[in-house]
Amino acid sequence: MQRQKLLINGERLKDELERFANFGRTENNGVTRLSLSEEDRLVRDYFYTCCEELSLTVKVDDMGCMYATLDGAENKPPIVIGSHLDTVKKGGRFDGVLGVVAGLEVVRTLVENHIKPQIPITIVNWTNEEGARFEPSMMASGVLSGKFDKSVMLKKKDSEGITFEEALHSIGYAGKEEDRLKAASAYIELHIEQGPILENVDLSIGVVECVVGMACYDIEITGESDHAGTTPMNMRKDALFAANNLINEIRIRLGSLDSELVFTIGRVNVYPSIHTVIPNKVIFSLEARHKDTEIVSTVKDFIQSLPHLGLNEGCEVKTTKLWERDTVWFDQEILHHLDQSAQSLGYSNKRMVSGAGHDAQFIASFVPSAMVFVPSINGKSHCEEERTTWEDCEKGVNVVLDTVLSLLSK
Amino acid sequence: MQRQKLLINGERLKDELERFANFGRTENNGVTRLSLSEEDRLVRDYFYTCCEELSLTVKVDDMGCMYATLDGAENKPPIVIGSHLDTVKKGGRFDGVLGVVAGLEVVRTLVENHIKPQIPITIVNWTNEEGARFEPSMMASGVLSGKFDKSVMLKKKDSEGITFEEALHSIGYAGKEEDRLKAASAYIELHIEQGPILENVDLSIGVVECVVGMACYDIEITGESDHAGTTPMNMRKDALFAANNLINEIRIRLGSLDSELVFTIGRVNVYPSIHTVIPNKVIFSLEARHKDTEIVSTVKDFIQSLPHLGLNEGCEVKTTKLWERDTVWFDQEILHHLDQSAQSLGYSNKRMVSGAGHDAQFIASFVPSAMVFVPSINGKSHCEEERTTWEDCEKGVNVVLDTVLSLLSK
Repeated sequence: MQRQKLLINGERLKDELERFANFGRTENNGVTRLSLSEEDRLVRDYFYTCCEELSLTVKVDDMGCMYATLDGAENKPPIVIGSHLDTVKKGGRFDGVLGVVAGLEVVRTLVENHIKPQIPITIVNWTNEEGARFEPSMMASGVLSGKFDKSVMLKKKDSEGITFEEALHSIGYAGKEEDRLKAASAYIELHIEQGPILENVDLSIGVVECVVGMACYDIEITGESDHAGTTPMNMRKDALFAANNLINEIRIRLGSLDSELVFTIGRVNVYPSIHTVIPNKVIFSLEARHKDTEIVSTVKDFIQSLPHLGLNEGCEVKTTKLWERDTVWFDQEILHHLDQSAQSLGYSNKRMVSGAGHDAQFIASFVPSAMVFVPSINGKSHCEEERTTWEDCEKGVNVVLDTVLSLLSK
Repeated sequence: MQRQKLLINGERLKDELERFANFGRTENNGVTRLSLSEEDRLVRDYFYTCCEELSLTVKVDDMGCMYATLDGAENKPPIVIGSHLDTVKKGGRFDGVLGVVAGLEVVRTLVENHIKPQIPITIVNWTNEEGARFEPSMMASGVLSGKFDKSVMLKKKDSEGITFEEALHSIGYAGKEEDRLKAASAYIELHIEQGPILENVDLSIGVVECVVGMACYDIEITGESDHAGTTPMNMRKDALFAANNLINEIRIRLGSLDSELVFTIGRVNVYPSIHTVIPNKVIFSLEARHKDTEIVSTVKDFIQSLPHLGLNEGCEVKTTKLWERDTVWFDQEILHHLDQSAQSLGYSNKRMVSGAGHDAQFIASFVPSAMVFVPSINGKSHCEEERTTWEDCEKGVNVVLDTVLSLLSK
């Protein structure tokens, strides 16, 4: 027999998201809430109060991550729901906070329906996902998963020279290492898509199978900076023309590789960048992302072949790999539950990948994890125009609630 | 009967060029002698002394230009020989100074051979040809020819806020407007080529027919700066990809127009220039130079058509003309004499154009003018490596002397 669907309170969710958006609200209805800032302290205090009102046990770890736990009948590793409360400068009102408020709303729904879960439910707020004030991004989940070294992270400085450690103490959120999340039954992160795909195909729910692998390179071209007026075309070593050849070839080759491959030449510097001087140096970044290791591998081989394609216009071409990451696949069982929940709730949905990084990709290394995406209007995020409809937010949280109930009833 | 060829003293020329190179000499054997700097004052004082030793009459005009005149039998408008003594920062030992020292050497040769010219010979040092400290370049010749407004030029400031007028007074070279060059029988400027053409065809003398016309544009492309990881390729408005398309088309179309056309995309700025963000703006300069008005016209039409070629990748493309100049043709009679002189002296030579700007292009508006080029090793100028062989310098000055003698004997 199919159980009666328990649903969250959409109005309460909306009100709560609007309250959270007041912490660091910008003129244009966006949010600036840099990690460990005064605005971050205030939103954390408010989150803390919300959790206390629900009689949750709140703990803070040594990286400032907050865990608010609803006890379960059995003292087993919890089901964890969450995301992050920090934003970029002039960011939006949904990125991160949606996943944390989803946790609050799920727990509120359970509590008001007098559902005592079999195992604990923990709401988490990961510290410094954005890396906007202290690099790198996903700092705390990176430390918890052993990707980053804690002592190095504590010394990271913001643009004013304040260290992460100092900021953490100054807002009063330096907790204990023993209170870190060490094990969990599941981790579910609801997040805005930050891209245009769901909106474009008019679907409400994306069940995120993976965070795609990527490789990022610098391509450096060295030519000669002669006089623009006195050097005949056939006697030039024009680094910009060589760059143009290479970018053409990149677009042709990578553009035909796979329709899901994304590749971006985002950072471009041309030297000396004087209108009367032929450029003698161009450095551009090239990053490519795809879920299949094999495709990323093909991309890497191609990039390394760039200097040898006869496109150099007499210039030297050098490729340097800046970094790469492997695709992180999420937990099949949780993904299956998320599919089922979306389906049974009657929400349009599809499997998809995450092209952006998220805390879940680090947490997945020690906890069965998965993510849910809801549509971003015009695909916009990290800007004041970032929006998701209230209806889609509600659907996203209902999927999380339903999946939590499914996992509890295993 | 062919007259006996009078020749200059090559050793004396070399020694003088080496002495001039000591004023502002850099570590790497280049020269930094910015206009109206202390180094410029010292080189002017030295030039002044040289002229006084030759019993020349030296005058300084209100823009600081120096005129040193050897009297002629008749008090007619002089034959003027010269160039400029200022350099760019870390410039070379030949650009400009060669033309002034050529004047000194020509006069020295006349004087030591007791030749009293029929009309006066004036050696000129134009102030601020380079525009490296005070923009624009060719400032004084521009004022003399009415291209630039004197009162505007006097207020031009260097990077430290010092005005041209203040600097001119502080080095003691603010003369009188009545002493400006107003009329002359001829103006001959010997200059290094600043390009690779003469060296490439192994010739010593370039007889410069014109300073080529040019047009300079900004091309601005506006797209959308979405997330590099989350935006599928077919949903992007990538300003860099649009720029790449346009640069391709520019190279194809302008590259096939005429082999003497030179075009350069020198200044390129990409925004926001972050490796994980699709560029939403690219602005690049495009300048093209050719002697034929018709070809420059075709180039301008093509540039203005760029937004409408269907290459925009969903971006907006805007073209803005920054400036243009018409080709300045030099005096046919002087050019003929220069050809004849090079020929009769047995120096390999050709007619050519100047892709770079020179004071002669402004002076040509009120004085019959022409230029002579000597080869630049590796085509280099405006750098410490700038070199021309002593032999070629000597040949260049001999051509000037011989042409002056031809003009005198008309």
